[in-house]
Amino acid sequence: MTNDAVLHALREFVAERDWAQFHSPENLAKSVSIEAGELLECFQWGPDFNAERVAEELADVLTYCYLLADKLGVDADQIVLDKLATTKAKYPVEKSRGTSAKYDQL
Amino acid sequence: MTNDAVLHALREFVAERDWAQFHSPENLAKSVSIEAGELLECFQWGPDFNAERVAEELADVLTYCYLLADKLGVDADQIVLDKLATTKAKYPVEKSRGTSAKYDQL
Amino acid sequence: MTNDAVLHALREFVAERDWAQFHSPENLAKSVSIEAGELLECFQWGPDFNAERVAEELADVLTYCYLLADKLGVDADQIVLDKLATTKAKYPVEKSRGTSAKYDQL
Amino acid sequence: MTNDAVLHALREFVAERDWAQFHSPENLAKSVSIEAGELLECFQWGPDFNAERVAEELADVLTYCYLLADKLGVDADQIVLDKLATTKAKYPVEKSRGTSAKYDQL
Repeated sequence: MTNDAVLHALREFVAERDWAQFHSPENLAKSVSIEAGELLECFQWGPDFNAERVAEELADVLTYCYLLADKLGVDADQIVLDKLATTKAKYPVEKSRGTSAKYDQL
Repeated sequence: MTNDAVLHALREFVAERDWAQFHSPENLAKSVSIEAGELLECFQWGPDFNAERVAEELADVLTYCYLLADKLGVDADQIVLDKLATTKAKYPVEKSRGTSAKYDQL
Repeated sequence: MTNDAVLHALREFVAERDWAQFHSPENLAKSVSIEAGELLECFQWGPDFNAERVAEELADVLTYCYLLADKLGVDADQIVLDKLATTKAKYPVEKSRGTSAKYDQL
Repeated sequence: MTNDAVLHALREFVAERDWAQFHSPENLAKSVSIEAGELLECFQWGPDFNAERVAEELADVLTYCYLLADKLGVDADQIVLDKLATTKAKYPVEKSRGTSAKYDQL
């Protein structure tokens, strides 16, 4: 389960600013994409990166992910574990070891 | 702190498949962006959505976020809380209440 | 065919700055995604937009698209027409009229 | 100016399917981001790529870019040239030659 303290802090932050009105699932999904682009910008010209900047941009992506999970009424950690079970079935160890090929090309 | 069980499950999943070799920070950041695009696709033509599909795509974004945090050696929940402190300072309650304007336009 | 004047101007811009070394197809693809995120930011909280800002962000996406097409040795307009032929076959007029459903759900 | 034949073909494709109703600027901007993610997926695990697949995904990004430009009433090639003039001013040749640094760090 996502740490209660994080969810509580995010909810309070949003409530104090009366921002729930902007946080439709659609707008939160757009926000995840926008912040993912800023995270990617840390690696625009190659693999070297500034760890502090990456952590900050990653935090922005995660923040919108948590807000969207909360809006959907799902637990972030639980949906990750649920999806992992599905992915494990699509990528059996013996077929997928050491290759980055997609499941439909294994 | 991110739930140990989730991190443990993700690390085991990657180790069993020998996939750490593909998981450079750069590749994980690309993966976050790619999955964020798939999440956005749930809302491509409007605000209506299939909750189950959104949860699955959100799980994919979160999975790569957790893997990237782990690779950086930071705790996902902690960087969210740290960034929240910064954001609170940029968006004081009295100035930002009820508006979606960016901090430099408040 | 993409207007020669545009391609010529872009190539000259890159050559003068000795930037071709950064413009691997991978880096250009990342750049398209990053700029697409900035374009999306114009619509983060809803459908209203600043037309001038949207045009500027769209121009950035297009610029990296043209540079990537040029790097691949393909003509931007031609690949659009080629893909349109494929898409027309996937979305026959009689089945797809007035619906935003994906081809596999028509 | 964008080739008339391309614009004509795209407009006819949309009109025949009665899809203009889905093509708000916001939805087209989301679509550009979604397709940019699919383009990026061609490079998810490294710089190697399938040129045919990249060209197809790039065509999808370009298609939505052209549709958005058309919706805004601007010419794709013209906004690229306009933006290039701005970018040239931000990145003077003598300061930016051979470096991928952002303009605010030159």
